[in-house]
Amino acid sequence: MYTWEVNKQLWLELTQAALAARDFKTLRHMLQDMHPADISQLLRKLSAADAALLFRLLPKDEAAETFALLGSSAQQTLIQSFSDAETVELLEALYVDEAVDFLEELPANAVKHILQNSTPDMRAQLNRFLQYKEDSAGSVMTTELMHFPYNNTVGETIAAIRATPRKLAMDHVLYITDRQRHLLGDIHLYDLLTSEDSLLLEDLTGKTTPQVHTDQSTDEVIALFRHYDLHAMPVVDTENRLVGVVTLEDVLDLADQQATQDVELMAAMQPSEASYMETSVTRHARNRLPWLLLLLISGMINGVILGGFEKIFMAVPLLVTFIPMLTDTGGNAGSQSSTLIIRSLAMGDITTRDALKVLWKELGVSLLVSIGLGLLTFGRVITMQDGNLMLAITVVVALSAIVVLSKLLGGLLPLLANRLRMDPALMAAPLITTVVDALGLIIYFMTAKLLLGL
Amino acid sequence: MYTWEVNKQLWLELTQAALAARDFKTLRHMLQDMHPADISQLLRKLSAADAALLFRLLPKDEAAETFALLGSSAQQTLIQSFSDAETVELLEALYVDEAVDFLEELPANAVKHILQNSTPDMRAQLNRFLQYKEDSAGSVMTTELMHFPYNNTVGETIAAIRATPRKLAMDHVLYITDRQRHLLGDIHLYDLLTSEDSLLLEDLTGKTTPQVHTDQSTDEVIALFRHYDLHAMPVVDTENRLVGVVTLEDVLDLADQQATQDVELMAAMQPSEASYMETSVTRHARNRLPWLLLLLISGMINGVILGGFEKIFMAVPLLVTFIPMLTDTGGNAGSQSSTLIIRSLAMGDITTRDALKVLWKELGVSLLVSIGLGLLTFGRVITMQDGNLMLAITVVVALSAIVVLSKLLGGLLPLLANRLRMDPALMAAPLITTVVDALGLIIYFMTAKLLLGL
Repeated sequence: MYTWEVNKQLWLELTQAALAARDFKTLRHMLQDMHPADISQLLRKLSAADAALLFRLLPKDEAAETFALLGSSAQQTLIQSFSDAETVELLEALYVDEAVDFLEELPANAVKHILQNSTPDMRAQLNRFLQYKEDSAGSVMTTELMHFPYNNTVGETIAAIRATPRKLAMDHVLYITDRQRHLLGDIHLYDLLTSEDSLLLEDLTGKTTPQVHTDQSTDEVIALFRHYDLHAMPVVDTENRLVGVVTLEDVLDLADQQATQDVELMAAMQPSEASYMETSVTRHARNRLPWLLLLLISGMINGVILGGFEKIFMAVPLLVTFIPMLTDTGGNAGSQSSTLIIRSLAMGDITTRDALKVLWKELGVSLLVSIGLGLLTFGRVITMQDGNLMLAITVVVALSAIVVLSKLLGGLLPLLANRLRMDPALMAAPLITTVVDALGLIIYFMTAKLLLGL
Repeated sequence: MYTWEVNKQLWLELTQAALAARDFKTLRHMLQDMHPADISQLLRKLSAADAALLFRLLPKDEAAETFALLGSSAQQTLIQSFSDAETVELLEALYVDEAVDFLEELPANAVKHILQNSTPDMRAQLNRFLQYKEDSAGSVMTTELMHFPYNNTVGETIAAIRATPRKLAMDHVLYITDRQRHLLGDIHLYDLLTSEDSLLLEDLTGKTTPQVHTDQSTDEVIALFRHYDLHAMPVVDTENRLVGVVTLEDVLDLADQQATQDVELMAAMQPSEASYMETSVTRHARNRLPWLLLLLISGMINGVILGGFEKIFMAVPLLVTFIPMLTDTGGNAGSQSSTLIIRSLAMGDITTRDALKVLWKELGVSLLVSIGLGLLTFGRVITMQDGNLMLAITVVVALSAIVVLSKLLGGLLPLLANRLRMDPALMAAPLITTVVDALGLIIYFMTAKLLLGL
């Protein structure tokens, strides 16, 4: 643990003690300097009654910020102690994307009840957001942004900003629009502030601003943020009118989630949005079992293949002892390649167009690696008690063939999946291991048959 | 490919054509609306002479932005066509962290030469940055930030900002300091703008601002950004004076790098900073071979273990055909668990303190999963041509023991590594597979010996 985590832990324990002692003076004092992220961590540890008590001590904006960081199960526990009026007040203090995240996890009738109690404006907006598809730009954007008409002067705009303070999710980029709210450009608040008062906003717009539609995928949004080093991405509706913005803070979360789901899929699991600890044992089992069953079945097929070579391995039992080494090395060599390609695809560093280059690179690498592995294996087999030259050659030839094959498959299968619009992360270690096992066993025993004259 | 990527590709090709035709009017016109990220992509594709030509057409600030995005090998090619004066001018237009990133990849005498040509101020600053350790907050921070004394009024501060436009890396958070430049707090530019002119800055500071020292690790910086949902992190020196800031844009890059290096290590490779395509075949081989050799040796040990059971598998050759299925399933089950734990540790979702909870969870999951896998396996073995009840029980018992063991090891080894201050990603699929293979083979044949009376 880092020092700040240890200090945070201590602080959380002190606050908890003050709460247990019902020492509200100390408690208020401690909460004043606590960050909402820490308060939300504390709330998750408390009983429902204590959590509700503590939550009511928070100022409105801070309560909203804390609530947004709670996670859906703690949110639902907390909300049970709220009156309808309190719930609606809380929803109004949240950013719209946070409110929607919360509502999406509630049972349908609870959502209906809350919407009935909301103001018509808010109800309309929440309803619109609830219709955006999961993992679309619309579902992760927020609406609290600044936009001004292109024919405003800098001076007018600054005066307007100063006159009406608002709670903004994106507080440092202004969007410049026409009368129909079509996006014309953007400008940083700092650049606005350091421009001449008499200039028009349209004079300050620079290059075309990258923008996305509400229904474009979050993966595409992340790719654009990565490529263009953006602060924020404006989102437009089907009529190209500005409706929201995706912020960099949200993208950091999305990129983390994307990476987590990729590694989960690569390790043959159903990706899950909930954290490890929040996921129940049965849910964990359900995420993992289907893949294990699938791979078990392909493992059984490999057993059948192996059974076909029974005569050969009965003649030279020593051959059996190299099976784990050969199959493991194939799996490892293949998973190195597939991992690199899957990650490079996710980061936008390579595309399916690079297939030929990948093929050549992996071929080169696998030949180099085979030399190293082959030398060690040759030395080992030839110096074994029952080892001999032909056996050593058999194992080395099989090993090299397996390494080359697994690296080529590892390099190309993720590209193929991408081409077929499947998730490349499916083509990771577990699947490649099974395929390479089957091919590897065939190569191994065919070589043995040939070289050892069996 | 996304639509924007196809369009970008087309645009790049048109620009390249205009350059080839030396049609400078069209070229300038096209460059005007191109984003620096796209221009840098184009530059990497061009010959050295064409790249230098195109680069000189860019306005100074845009040239700097484009240069920063080039990557070190393209930077070095480009810089070769520059005069000393041009190089220094370029360095001055870069943010200090970008300039340092560039210098760090240059040969020592080239750096010395450039520093000699710089102004004393710049030389001093670059020298200080070059001394920060790799992967420390100091090495990734930048210095172009706004800071004002605590006894300034809001009106004075706004006037000061408007009077002296600067090129800022962090243009929407102001830092509030005392006379000795100790950090007292921060405030968003928007909040400054929407406050009363007569207020003092010290009245606007809220909660304590999280801050890091120059020598704290970037991993810790990322963890703080994740936990506190930050925009920017101020960095202080040993005397607690504000010296720089790490921005969220940098953190997105760092988090991506961290995830990439983790998956590379998990797939048994030396993590590399260069992209897949930029890495040479020999470099790829050097990153991958040592791990494959290490795992090959442990595979050989497994061969020795297997050799010890020769009498048993010669008596019932059918036993051999289940080896790949058992070892693969062990590897897959273990890698599911280790992947989840390694990722949760990296995201700060669990700590070593949770070891006992992880143990229970993995035990529960592995028992549930074993039932599913066991039923399928039992059905398969009992219906095989040479299958029988005792053989089916043998395989199922071994399979279940392997699944439980591999899930426990997969769950706990990463936590152990973390406790020993090693990288948990080392305890991933490849290592766990080897360990589980050895134990699995022993369990399998011991069970067979016992149940089949061999």
